[in-house]
Amino acid sequence: MNDLEKMRHTLSHVLAAAVQELYPEAKFGIGPAIDEGFYYDIDFGKTKISDTDLPKIEKKMRNIVSRKLPMVKREATKSEAINWARDHGQDYKIELIEELPESDKITFYDMGDLFTDLCKGPHVKNTKDVGPFKLVRVAGAYWRGDEKRPMLTRIYGVAFATEDELNAYLTRQEEAKKRDHRKLGKELDLFCFSDLVGVGLPMFTPRGTELRELMANYSLSLRGREGFKKVFTPHITKTDLYKTSGHYAKFGDELFMVHSQVNGDDFAMKPMNCPHHTQIFASRPRTYREMPVRYMEATTDYRDEKTGELGGLSRVRALTQDDSHVFCRKDQIKEEVKRLVGIVKELYETVGMQKLRARLSYRSDEDKYLGDKKLWAMAQAQIKQAAIDNHLDYFEQEGEAAFYGPKIDFMAEDAIGREHQLATIQLDFVMPERFGLEFTNEKGQKECPVMIHHATLGSIERFLSVFIEHTGGWFPFWCAPEQVRILTVNNQVTDYVAKITDILDKIVLDKPLKYNELRYTVDETADSLGKKIKRATEMKIPAVLIVGPKDAEEGVVSVRLRDKEEKVKLTSLAKFLCKL
Amino acid sequence: MNDLEKMRHTLSHVLAAAVQELYPEAKFGIGPAIDEGFYYDIDFGKTKISDTDLPKIEKKMRNIVSRKLPMVKREATKSEAINWARDHGQDYKIELIEELPESDKITFYDMGDLFTDLCKGPHVKNTKDVGPFKLVRVAGAYWRGDEKRPMLTRIYGVAFATEDELNAYLTRQEEAKKRDHRKLGKELDLFCFSDLVGVGLPMFTPRGTELRELMANYSLSLRGREGFKKVFTPHITKTDLYKTSGHYAKFGDELFMVHSQVNGDDFAMKPMNCPHHTQIFASRPRTYREMPVRYMEATTDYRDEKTGELGGLSRVRALTQDDSHVFCRKDQIKEEVKRLVGIVKELYETVGMQKLRARLSYRSDEDKYLGDKKLWAMAQAQIKQAAIDNHLDYFEQEGEAAFYGPKIDFMAEDAIGREHQLATIQLDFVMPERFGLEFTNEKGQKECPVMIHHATLGSIERFLSVFIEHTGGWFPFWCAPEQVRILTVNNQVTDYVAKITDILDKIVLDKPLKYNELRYTVDETADSLGKKIKRATEMKIPAVLIVGPKDAEEGVVSVRLRDKEEKVKLTSLAKFLCKL
Repeated sequence: MNDLEKMRHTLSHVLAAAVQELYPEAKFGIGPAIDEGFYYDIDFGKTKISDTDLPKIEKKMRNIVSRKLPMVKREATKSEAINWARDHGQDYKIELIEELPESDKITFYDMGDLFTDLCKGPHVKNTKDVGPFKLVRVAGAYWRGDEKRPMLTRIYGVAFATEDELNAYLTRQEEAKKRDHRKLGKELDLFCFSDLVGVGLPMFTPRGTELRELMANYSLSLRGREGFKKVFTPHITKTDLYKTSGHYAKFGDELFMVHSQVNGDDFAMKPMNCPHHTQIFASRPRTYREMPVRYMEATTDYRDEKTGELGGLSRVRALTQDDSHVFCRKDQIKEEVKRLVGIVKELYETVGMQKLRARLSYRSDEDKYLGDKKLWAMAQAQIKQAAIDNHLDYFEQEGEAAFYGPKIDFMAEDAIGREHQLATIQLDFVMPERFGLEFTNEKGQKECPVMIHHATLGSIERFLSVFIEHTGGWFPFWCAPEQVRILTVNNQVTDYVAKITDILDKIVLDKPLKYNELRYTVDETADSLGKKIKRATEMKIPAVLIVGPKDAEEGVVSVRLRDKEEKVKLTSLAKFLCKL
Repeated sequence: MNDLEKMRHTLSHVLAAAVQELYPEAKFGIGPAIDEGFYYDIDFGKTKISDTDLPKIEKKMRNIVSRKLPMVKREATKSEAINWARDHGQDYKIELIEELPESDKITFYDMGDLFTDLCKGPHVKNTKDVGPFKLVRVAGAYWRGDEKRPMLTRIYGVAFATEDELNAYLTRQEEAKKRDHRKLGKELDLFCFSDLVGVGLPMFTPRGTELRELMANYSLSLRGREGFKKVFTPHITKTDLYKTSGHYAKFGDELFMVHSQVNGDDFAMKPMNCPHHTQIFASRPRTYREMPVRYMEATTDYRDEKTGELGGLSRVRALTQDDSHVFCRKDQIKEEVKRLVGIVKELYETVGMQKLRARLSYRSDEDKYLGDKKLWAMAQAQIKQAAIDNHLDYFEQEGEAAFYGPKIDFMAEDAIGREHQLATIQLDFVMPERFGLEFTNEKGQKECPVMIHHATLGSIERFLSVFIEHTGGWFPFWCAPEQVRILTVNNQVTDYVAKITDILDKIVLDKPLKYNELRYTVDETADSLGKKIKRATEMKIPAVLIVGPKDAEEGVVSVRLRDKEEKVKLTSLAKFLCKL
């Protein structure tokens, strides 16, 4: 445990000590350090605790910190420990102690004379060493995560090594709240939900559909350039497909099952596309000449997530993957992985998330991995070489591979410093064999290909949830659903607006997505210019063209961008917009 | 019954008489006239009848026709009829007679002294009047369509008024067999099926996906031009959506039901998209200013067709509709229908099926129609005016409307004279009300919109089944999955091929689909030119470029089209291809 974790852990004790002083009846559950801070689960009996109680508790915590109490470790036998917990009425602690082995030494930490807790440690030496912190919120949490046990009150705090880091974190949280994609999705009219359709099943409005199609098409275009061909498969299948692939044995009880009332037969909704794609590969004989065979499909998969975990686009039951599968020879792995890594780098560069980290997940010595060990070793070496050749910021983890092959997962950092796992490249030595896939090699022999699974955006819905928050809804010009809005100052500029739209109609962006025709609207309502500007700003339109009679006379347009405004000559308007 | 139907009906008796002479043990079921001919269902006992027996039976039929036997009607009581059937061991006839009311006069037809059958008639007067005919095939058919009853042998014949018509029909059938889209789908590598996935669930290969996307995108582009915006909806929904729309009460037992094993909740797969689209319309307040609101979505719907009825792409369980919904004011119906009719005409003109008939389906005086009668009358008048304004070849049918509104169905004629019902435009006065849809009008009052359902291609799968047979797999240049293939005469033209591909890479077709980049491949294998040409022809590539060292010297290319071959200068190659 590093120093920061120790500080956070000690803070959870300080929190408990403060609560004990303020609410002597409180019974304590557990209080660990977590990413960015700490929490403590507490039974407050009949007292209701809410966010409004946090300042009072925090004040008491600061008081305890200023008392400079030493944190001292102490050992006890199990029966001593149980006696202590019983004396203090700490029922949850009794339960925890009773589960410890008889022989073990049990450790306590004393915070001066103020507060004692059952704890393995470690801690900082003194409460004065805990560093800057803040209590942030109250939540409910079942004791031991079991919904049949009592609901405790969980108090969350954050803590960092320096005041600056804490402030940066709190600002980022504030910023994240403003960027919440659920809020922006509504404000920018991108997607909606309906109680009649169900949770986790977003529907996309015209603006949201424009955005998702632009992103999907861009992703498809990058792969199309690299020899991937689109295929199309249905959303359901007989379960035989998953029995053969092996998914049924592993995840059969997580599938959405489909029942035919007319014919009485049963299907499953596809949670992934690889098994379907193997069937296209297998639909005719293949030779070494056409390897690698590369398929891609942006298609909706259905995953039966727990209802409680669904929210906005981050976690949905209908997720559209920009999925790809390469069927290649063993000696083509490096080249193919390199190709995919190149695509990932280009895409995340374009969307402004160039800070990418890659985790190379390898097998460990355990038995759970399927496929030849030599093949694994060769493939892992090829993956690593591809990472080096592409100058990836990578790290390696043994034992993190899937049972069917090693993989690369990409973590992209967003504008407010959060990391999101999005793209993935996974080798698969198992599925081709299970489906009996084969091609004829130069010697006329049958050979089994290796499969590479890849998604560039990952799920389009989840990517959008990240991208909306990354941009705060100010989408880059090329993918803004409405790129340009023309606002008229009054009704004397109709002819001039027609001149402008003639120019806009001819604009076609070719980067990063080819043949992207300009998307614009005209606000010619009788509303005041102020009102029109307000509306355009609320919709975060990247380029707003303001047109009055004087502009018409002078042959110019006022172009209002997010951060500046300038007069542009009509003759250079197209060029100006193409550069955005 | 017209004369042709009488002739066909008499032929079914002649068929039965011939069978009786050849197979005295045969027991007869029913033998009606049908479109293009007739059939008879016969129990041959232990004798197996196949297509190879047809010439013998047909010969006997011609012999009976030449005997010029009169067809004479005769009446009998029910008990006389039963006695007759019992005497002749005709068990199936006994069953039929027993179900007739006691009081009715039962009629028989005698064919001279040769053959008697229970029959209501009418018939031609004499067997010599039956006209040209031919037996075409044998099939199995359950007695009375009940799979628990015996399987009879059904013999099909075709018959027409003239020898020419019969021959034309038989030639068309022969041609249809060659064009069978299931056969071409395999030969041209367009789509495939897998036993692991299931019947009625086609998967599309890269070539087939190219074709379906080009057609779908063309259809979407036509509507995009007319103000339709793409939306995106999931493939499943809570059944609440269909309970509200009214579909559940009507078609609830035909839905594919989806069960969540994780959460225990239930869903249905969407068989259509209108209810989902209403939810996007309803996701925010609407005003008269934005009406009509036009959505489109090319999305896959799931319909639980009977397994026995599935075949190729004609009837599938996963059908992708190029669906659209207009939400408009009552006085906008004509304008919107006109817009849609224009789109339909343009699309079918482009795909070479310009011979379109339109059926305008109106309400009758029955009570089954919902919605205000005046609204119906107004809407029907608007539809008719739109048909006239668009110079449609239309006919009107009362009583053929859907219960929710009048409609236009389009029948397109294919290259071998078959008519297919594909596009549709349907008004809907009911669904908007059921979902409580509304917009604010000029007076600040809430008004309920009218919905117009429209599909241009219909289902993309079914359209393709027609289009593949219509073209015989020789797709128009713009939508051929592989438009151009370069064949090298030998290995001395590599540099020249590079020059050609440089030209091809720059070609972008703009009609009928914008930004359609040229799709080409190069066959540089060591195979003989003859073999390469054979392969390209088998794949029905519209333009094959043959390149040898002499062509390279002269700066020309041999372009081989379906029906001609010519030398084209490299400098005019792009222009030449763009004109195809």
